[in-house]
Amino acid sequence: MRHFDLAVIGTGPAGQRAAIQAAKLGKRVCVIERSRVVGGADTNTGTIPSKALREAALHLTGTSMRGIFGDNYRVKRNITISDLISVSQHVIRREWSVIQDAFERNGVELVWGRARFGDNNLLHIEREEESERLSAERFLIAVGTRPARPEEVPFDNLSVFTSDELLKLERLPKSLIVVGGGVIGTEYACIMATLWVKVTLIEGRPHVLGFLDEEIAEAFQYHMRQHGMTLRLGEKVSKIERAPGGLENGAHVTAMLESGKKLQAEALLYAVGRQGVCAKLDVDKVGLKFDDRERLKVNAQYQTNVPHIYAAGDVIGFPALASTAMEQGRLAVCHMFGAPTQSMPHLYPLGIYAVPEISMVGKTEEQLTEDAVPYEAGVAQNRELARGQLLGDETGMLKLLIHQDTHEILGVQCIGTGATELIHIGQVAMAFKANVEFFVDNVFNHPTLAEAYKVAAHNGLNKLRHV
Amino acid sequence: MRHFDLAVIGTGPAGQRAAIQAAKLGKRVCVIERSRVVGGADTNTGTIPSKALREAALHLTGTSMRGIFGDNYRVKRNITISDLISVSQHVIRREWSVIQDAFERNGVELVWGRARFGDNNLLHIEREEESERLSAERFLIAVGTRPARPEEVPFDNLSVFTSDELLKLERLPKSLIVVGGGVIGTEYACIMATLWVKVTLIEGRPHVLGFLDEEIAEAFQYHMRQHGMTLRLGEKVSKIERAPGGLENGAHVTAMLESGKKLQAEALLYAVGRQGVCAKLDVDKVGLKFDDRERLKVNAQYQTNVPHIYAAGDVIGFPALASTAMEQGRLAVCHMFGAPTQSMPHLYPLGIYAVPEISMVGKTEEQLTEDAVPYEAGVAQNRELARGQLLGDETGMLKLLIHQDTHEILGVQCIGTGATELIHIGQVAMAFKANVEFFVDNVFNHPTLAEAYKVAAHNGLNKLRHV
Repeated sequence: MRHFDLAVIGTGPAGQRAAIQAAKLGKRVCVIERSRVVGGADTNTGTIPSKALREAALHLTGTSMRGIFGDNYRVKRNITISDLISVSQHVIRREWSVIQDAFERNGVELVWGRARFGDNNLLHIEREEESERLSAERFLIAVGTRPARPEEVPFDNLSVFTSDELLKLERLPKSLIVVGGGVIGTEYACIMATLWVKVTLIEGRPHVLGFLDEEIAEAFQYHMRQHGMTLRLGEKVSKIERAPGGLENGAHVTAMLESGKKLQAEALLYAVGRQGVCAKLDVDKVGLKFDDRERLKVNAQYQTNVPHIYAAGDVIGFPALASTAMEQGRLAVCHMFGAPTQSMPHLYPLGIYAVPEISMVGKTEEQLTEDAVPYEAGVAQNRELARGQLLGDETGMLKLLIHQDTHEILGVQCIGTGATELIHIGQVAMAFKANVEFFVDNVFNHPTLAEAYKVAAHNGLNKLRHV
Repeated sequence: MRHFDLAVIGTGPAGQRAAIQAAKLGKRVCVIERSRVVGGADTNTGTIPSKALREAALHLTGTSMRGIFGDNYRVKRNITISDLISVSQHVIRREWSVIQDAFERNGVELVWGRARFGDNNLLHIEREEESERLSAERFLIAVGTRPARPEEVPFDNLSVFTSDELLKLERLPKSLIVVGGGVIGTEYACIMATLWVKVTLIEGRPHVLGFLDEEIAEAFQYHMRQHGMTLRLGEKVSKIERAPGGLENGAHVTAMLESGKKLQAEALLYAVGRQGVCAKLDVDKVGLKFDDRERLKVNAQYQTNVPHIYAAGDVIGFPALASTAMEQGRLAVCHMFGAPTQSMPHLYPLGIYAVPEISMVGKTEEQLTEDAVPYEAGVAQNRELARGQLLGDETGMLKLLIHQDTHEILGVQCIGTGATELIHIGQVAMAFKANVEFFVDNVFNHPTLAEAYKVAAHNGLNKLRHV
């Protein structure tokens, strides 16, 4: 029986990062994967495939160049699923080899099979061929989540499906109802609308992406509607019905809302909630508790209620992003082996690959108001920037939230081309407690979108002069 | 006669920024423009049009998506000059209105006409209609440069031309000789090669872009050659001859090299040197001295040899970039009116919009070696990043130069998609004297190219562990 200092369950971002961190600390570590490929939802069904679909859609439809070539510009008129899927297949295959290469280079043992706890330090690894038992001092559960599939929703994976099935569709529906305005629902709603699918999005709360700064959420919803999407906010679905026969027969889906409205479309994407898969790990054998969605609760060091078993990534809940999952995996391992490390949780960025892209770091206006911190907002519109014009980005903006007295930067909100990249300029400045004057003094390449930081700084300082 | 605290001559980036800075300080300021449009070479013949051409070429040829859709992917096969020019016209018009709007909003007086010095505080403004005289306490000369046109080069603006005429060509040549491997020569060489023009680039020095880090220069030259360009490095042109009749008659250009080689092409872009236009300003009336290329020498405060006359932008020489021109204009004005300001000249970035894009900040490996600063390099390849794979960027890389003892970041070198934007993440970190460990601890959005900073940091720290 093989013995390890650490056994990591799951090869998504949290598991990858944790295993490699442990190896770097000189520990004997294995990482266990139950599916036939590495990477978890990030690589195979979630982050990466949806971004590949997004890139392909923006390019093939000509959306990314429409600001320059005009509103009727198209690269390709009849876009098929296979045009789109080939892109993500290509990228997914590359990711597999990058991940496996990283495991090998760092001496991380990759173990294929389904893990089940036997006792406190024992895992059963089940495979179709011979099974195995292995023991470890410590464990990290990074098994991720899968889309919730409530019994009352009539899934058939053709006309009523979750995000896992969306990439396996044989053709694009003409119309789509998206239930759920979280990250997954909004990202796919935007991608489908880009592909000229008629999209209706239903969200129970008054805004999509409830964690956003309100001005950004408002701008985003405005663009979604301009883009042709119908938003049904503050509405709940009471019933979903499916006509028999699937898409081939022209059948349709009906969503009844609690308000009495009846919505119809060719297909429906159900994107409300995701749930863990902890029960299958036999975690009860070691006294590990999970919630009603099979998710685990951890302390600030990512320990579960069983101290030598840690958990990280989607299985522990919000924000359920690949970026934070990696960081959680790293911090968990540093804690379990007593390695010193720094963490800046107040500076974790949020990145949403919608159309347009959205990213933020630090506080929103609403949080600052609630905390009674006096602030001013400095804003730059991408259309004011030469680079914004070159990209034809008429909609992007960057907002710096500035402390009225100290001029410290308290938050950065960004929507538009490259938002998820650009946010890091502000994030680094915030890490060093920069004042907004820093961006006035800094020289930026021209023409870049990064110049938005200077424009926003000037705008903010102009307003502060009148306070 | 109108009187001003400051008269700025030229509405390019240096002049714009200077005038607006003076207005912000409450000064009465005018800005004088001799052409019929604002913006100078930046907007009208240089930076912006070339970047618009570059964006259009990368998109229409499909180059930017070829990593994903395959090497034979094309968006449009027969690309005409008018496909390309319409993009830059659109952007140029937008820039005019952005600039004029900024002048108006800030109360900067825009004066049309040609300026000539009358005496120490007097300018004659000449126009076809009525001329005018105006006086000012101080002056800023920001008249830029124009391409050098040596007498021995047989310019006809059809088959032998400078960058100013390139955007006015009626059709793309099949083959092009580019003389000069500086910023302008290399940028246009790359754009033309992207458009399937057969390009030969001649540069007298052993590398193009002599200021680059050698590893980056090497990578760049490798990509230029892979892209189909022929590089003739360390070679000088002894004679350029033109067959009569221009392009319509299938005429060609011959460039003789000192080494005896004879190169032929349909057209030749002469991109060696630019020169000022100071003589026309009658600067001798105020005792102002210029060099043999009509450029002005300034001190660290951007004062010429006549203390109340400042100069900024291309007219004072290297680096002759819009970004630094703006900063020079700002600093000159802050100095002349005694406004406190900060400047970080060691952190001015360099941005080259070649294919691929290149940017750097801080020191190169060669500079550090010469200064005897012990360093290690941490490198990330874009193909290691999920975002690099999504973009199909097989060639990009980011290099952090790290002090071996203190781990401080001493320089960032970047080549590939978005280099001119991404460099600013490292630039901000350097401004706050960040150690490379900062990027290990920082959380980046996933998938982004910004993650290259984390990968490069790990790579550098791995190497440092073995020192």
